[in-house]
Amino acid sequence: MTSPIKLAIVGVGKIVYDQHLPAITANADYALVATASRNNTIDNVPSFPTIEAMLAADPSIEAVSLCMPPQYRYAAARKALAAGKHVFLEKPPGATLSEVADLEAYAAEQGVSLFASWHSRYAPGVQPAKAHLAVEKPTAMHVVWKEDVRQWHPNQDWIWQAGGLGVFDPGINALSIVTEILPSAVFLTRAALEFPENRDAPIAADLHFQDADGVEVHAEFDWRQTGKQSWDIIVTTAKGEVRLADGGSRLWIDGAEQALEKEAEYPSLYQRFAAIIRAGKSDVDVAPLRHVADAFMLGQRKVVEAFHD
Amino acid sequence: MTSPIKLAIVGVGKIVYDQHLPAITANADYALVATASRNNTIDNVPSFPTIEAMLAADPSIEAVSLCMPPQYRYAAARKALAAGKHVFLEKPPGATLSEVADLEAYAAEQGVSLFASWHSRYAPGVQPAKAHLAVEKPTAMHVVWKEDVRQWHPNQDWIWQAGGLGVFDPGINALSIVTEILPSAVFLTRAALEFPENRDAPIAADLHFQDADGVEVHAEFDWRQTGKQSWDIIVTTAKGEVRLADGGSRLWIDGAEQALEKEAEYPSLYQRFAAIIRAGKSDVDVAPLRHVADAFMLGQRKVVEAFHD
Repeated sequence: MTSPIKLAIVGVGKIVYDQHLPAITANADYALVATASRNNTIDNVPSFPTIEAMLAADPSIEAVSLCMPPQYRYAAARKALAAGKHVFLEKPPGATLSEVADLEAYAAEQGVSLFASWHSRYAPGVQPAKAHLAVEKPTAMHVVWKEDVRQWHPNQDWIWQAGGLGVFDPGINALSIVTEILPSAVFLTRAALEFPENRDAPIAADLHFQDADGVEVHAEFDWRQTGKQSWDIIVTTAKGEVRLADGGSRLWIDGAEQALEKEAEYPSLYQRFAAIIRAGKSDVDVAPLRHVADAFMLGQRKVVEAFHD
Repeated sequence: MTSPIKLAIVGVGKIVYDQHLPAITANADYALVATASRNNTIDNVPSFPTIEAMLAADPSIEAVSLCMPPQYRYAAARKALAAGKHVFLEKPPGATLSEVADLEAYAAEQGVSLFASWHSRYAPGVQPAKAHLAVEKPTAMHVVWKEDVRQWHPNQDWIWQAGGLGVFDPGINALSIVTEILPSAVFLTRAALEFPENRDAPIAADLHFQDADGVEVHAEFDWRQTGKQSWDIIVTTAKGEVRLADGGSRLWIDGAEQALEKEAEYPSLYQRFAAIIRAGKSDVDVAPLRHVADAFMLGQRKVVEAFHD
């Protein structure tokens, strides 16, 4: 029996209370020993105002989970890696692809594990869908990711700033599933991005991808969806249809709903992080973020009406 | 003495007549055996309307140089790689990072060489500047790439389309030099991109980069420069200054102009391509294009007055 990994959380907010904390508490692989956050704390865990103060105060920390907005993740990750800590990056792994490439190289140099986490890949329907599509090749795919930003990201200004990614913040979850379940690589052929006239990030995106054999993937992301919310991926095969609904938590194959494991995205992420630490490896797949960068580079920009929270 | 590589050119236009053709003709490593282009031909070289027709007509072709606009490069590259040909990609290597990643993987699978060419890296001042900066570490860098688009890209509509990159078409040359001469990796921290109200690509960009130690790189790209044109990189070191001017063709170190080889960017590219073919290797560095994608993803968009050729 190995001893628990001494873990610290940096950037304590809603996603930490909702997801990270329950997953860590329930996992015997971890002992949560510190947090660093300007505004929030976790009961009975020593808290520090900054990552520097935290790393200085407790040299026994072995791994750090970075949960702040992506614009601030690089500097914190460099500090943690410099101190020889393993690093878990909440999605997306950074504000730029170049900084993620730098972190990956630096983690290798430091001999520690870097984990770029994509929680939606651990939704219960994803691996069964992937296994089916490895046998029954897709002929087309349609992705519909439409939600109400006022409900899911109320008054989160950072998400609307340049680098905050806008509707790609949820959309990158869809792309993380698409790139996991498709048997071949796809790339963007055309895209349109809608920017509210008062914001620096898009509120909607329409994306057309293709693989080398011409199989087409159409993805629609929209943050203006009221009423029914959609996080659906519909794959056509020669024999029928694979339908992932509710962000990958329900799965139909050729019309029949499949029995799935219970939802456990963040518990699975922390199991994976512990496994790569024990194995002395990193796990950094930038494909979802690369597609987002490609969409910003290739996409037509349309200015649409102002958005107010 | 090895026999010359049987080379074909796809996409015959101004850059081919000005640069590729003289470099190929002067190099005994190559025999130019075919071209494929909708509108243009090369005297005394068999020409075909499409790459498919060309590859079908002459199976002896060993390598293909792709010189069409980046939006069309992927499909042609896949066809050439599928036919077992070595591929030279004019800069930028594609319209998206994802397609370049796919081509790199496919070239490896096919056992042929893929060359993502960055011609400005072969400007005569670049390697001497790099050698100096490996010893005298940079403390800051300023890049000024300002030219008159009406003079250098008259009526080239594709350059203004989504995916045509706009001012990053010349700017990526600067970034190819910056990433070559700097001893450490940099990443974007903030950026502003100016889009003419009638165009889908930026006419100007202001970029701020940093390396892990906080060394700052400031790059200004502008396509509205009349009068004197600027393709300059000024690097400050603890002891003095390194100044690359005219796109890397002149070099001053601490105030003293350096004697350099004669300009030979495209001849050097074709020497490199032949060398990697003979060695059975590929050479694909996406760093310059990755910085461009990062700039589109992270940058603030400003709409400026319409641009007319």
